[in-house]
Amino acid sequence: MTADWLDRIDGEIPPADTTAQAAASAHLDRLTKPPGSLGGLEAIAIRLAGIRGGLTTDIEHPVVIVFAADHGVAARGVSAFPPEVTAQMVANFVAGGAAINVLARATGADLVVVDVGVAGGAGGADPTPAEGAERHGLAGFGTSGARLVQAPIAVGTRDMTTGPAMTRTEAVAAIEVGRQVVAEVVDAGADLIAVGEMGIGNTTAASAIVAALTGRPAADVTGRGTGVDDPGLHRKIAAIETALELHRPDPADPIGVLAAIGGLEIAGLVGAILAGSAARIPVVLDGFITGAAALVAAGLAPNLSERLIAAHRSVEPGHAVVLDRLGLAPILELDLRLGEGSGAALAVPIIRAAARICGEMATFEEAGVSGSD
Amino acid sequence: MTADWLDRIDGEIPPADTTAQAAASAHLDRLTKPPGSLGGLEAIAIRLAGIRGGLTTDIEHPVVIVFAADHGVAARGVSAFPPEVTAQMVANFVAGGAAINVLARATGADLVVVDVGVAGGAGGADPTPAEGAERHGLAGFGTSGARLVQAPIAVGTRDMTTGPAMTRTEAVAAIEVGRQVVAEVVDAGADLIAVGEMGIGNTTAASAIVAALTGRPAADVTGRGTGVDDPGLHRKIAAIETALELHRPDPADPIGVLAAIGGLEIAGLVGAILAGSAARIPVVLDGFITGAAALVAAGLAPNLSERLIAAHRSVEPGHAVVLDRLGLAPILELDLRLGEGSGAALAVPIIRAAARICGEMATFEEAGVSGSD
Repeated sequence: MTADWLDRIDGEIPPADTTAQAAASAHLDRLTKPPGSLGGLEAIAIRLAGIRGGLTTDIEHPVVIVFAADHGVAARGVSAFPPEVTAQMVANFVAGGAAINVLARATGADLVVVDVGVAGGAGGADPTPAEGAERHGLAGFGTSGARLVQAPIAVGTRDMTTGPAMTRTEAVAAIEVGRQVVAEVVDAGADLIAVGEMGIGNTTAASAIVAALTGRPAADVTGRGTGVDDPGLHRKIAAIETALELHRPDPADPIGVLAAIGGLEIAGLVGAILAGSAARIPVVLDGFITGAAALVAAGLAPNLSERLIAAHRSVEPGHAVVLDRLGLAPILELDLRLGEGSGAALAVPIIRAAARICGEMATFEEAGVSGSD
Repeated sequence: MTADWLDRIDGEIPPADTTAQAAASAHLDRLTKPPGSLGGLEAIAIRLAGIRGGLTTDIEHPVVIVFAADHGVAARGVSAFPPEVTAQMVANFVAGGAAINVLARATGADLVVVDVGVAGGAGGADPTPAEGAERHGLAGFGTSGARLVQAPIAVGTRDMTTGPAMTRTEAVAAIEVGRQVVAEVVDAGADLIAVGEMGIGNTTAASAIVAALTGRPAADVTGRGTGVDDPGLHRKIAAIETALELHRPDPADPIGVLAAIGGLEIAGLVGAILAGSAARIPVVLDGFITGAAALVAAGLAPNLSERLIAAHRSVEPGHAVVLDRLGLAPILELDLRLGEGSGAALAVPIIRAAARICGEMATFEEAGVSGSD
């Protein structure tokens, strides 16, 4: 399995289809409501048309994909939770007890969890070291839980403050995992992909990526993640500054940035976001970490952001920076900071409603309703 | 059928149950997520507990109730749409082609449309003059559309710029219609009520009510409604100023305000909001007009607002004033300005998700997940 597709990805992700957008806009204005009165819902409907290349009248098979991996930098005391929580939460996803299970079920979405490098093995099911992306496959289903795909590229990343988090080869292999999982779910009929992540320490990696790609100081784009205290926040910023000083990552080389200071699950997200967009499937971003992955992906395919949907704006200070850089307006602002794809899953009913408005509402002519002045 | 209950309503709507709220908050902190990380979703879950008096673990039978009536003030050229659109849209609701039909179906909510005074008869089905609330009953179902309740109190209101919109007796009768409809849907098992409205000219009435009850100048709380142009907006503000000058409504007499410058569907909303809250059912407000009705209702039962949920903040400038006065934070901000209960229906999946988080997530102990520091 090679990753030649990455060299061609820019050409496979064209700008949004403006003809389809204009047709959707005209259709919306014929429906029995004052023009524009559904506000952001109409904007979503037009965006879906631009992504899919035609009027989108329903979301029938949404799939939430959660990438999980561990982070060497967690040893620096940057998180409120111990590293073993990554594997414990993957087990919780498989068993069906996590927030993302509840939210995916509530909106009728399938849930796929991808172990791209959980230390100790995902869900405790497979403690053997990784052999690379070739191993991955559909490992089973939990009871009303998630399908677990085991595709570990490494046993977590290495500590970015003392060396590169990943080799470039590892980063590309993890991107490839994301591409493969999306190819499978698209083949199986997915018409929307919502992406999320789990990985203790991964807001540190995401903040480092955003600082490197935007040039913003670490302190501006670093927050409390799952709830680290003041000393922890200072350790987190210091770790990011140390890593940036050590690697001096080049923002013109997004994969180099990802390898030096990123994460395996973030790389998986990059692959999923690119592959979903290349397949003309709406990709719904969750919060800060998926946003950082989208920023890396947009460095490889500059038209990408027109094909993304931002589910929400989280409380992480770096998230607003990411959304601004990508030019994305979030659907929800609910002060979420959980990750797991929780915000993305919460936005699915709103996105589906926007599509169904296009598919099911009567026109003024059909309903015999008088128009405006 | 009397309305003695209105005299007792204050005592029937106590403050939110703080014991239930504290228990819900403690439960949320035991679930496998960083404390507070679901932000606004946790706030909704706690609010539901306070309303229902116990942990709320699902929303199984949401019902959207849309009150429809016409407005004499529409003759003053205050709307972008002609008055016959009220009846035409009620027919569209019954046939299933309006936005609220799509959004209610999408979230599994039943839809009830109540004719409290549509000129010409709701849906063209009953052009005879009203005889009062006693007449109302379940008139039938549209194909995948709405159940229509015909309970007209008058053939629309009279023009508030030349006299009272309603008599006090009419206003109380329309409030009683709202109470009865809610009593029926609660008896049938509704566990959430989302309220909306249809009535050409009704943002004029709502702005007049909000100006009267808050003391704010008409120009501050008056917007473009369904999309009136600049001259129309000036006519609208002038009509409200004329009506306020003519009636000098007393803010200490909410029903007097409602009768002088309100609307039959707004009165129906007042009754529905009060009855739902008295029954310990979460009442989800839609936009500006339902907010104005809630302001009237809160004048009769000051604890009311603790039992309401604001679905969204609309683009109408008066809506922010209403939400601020009621102390309500909206779930969505999607620049909606349609009415019909559309924003309230859109918020139902978010509210349901908040409930299911409480009902379905595993605790740290159950899932064997380590806690934070």
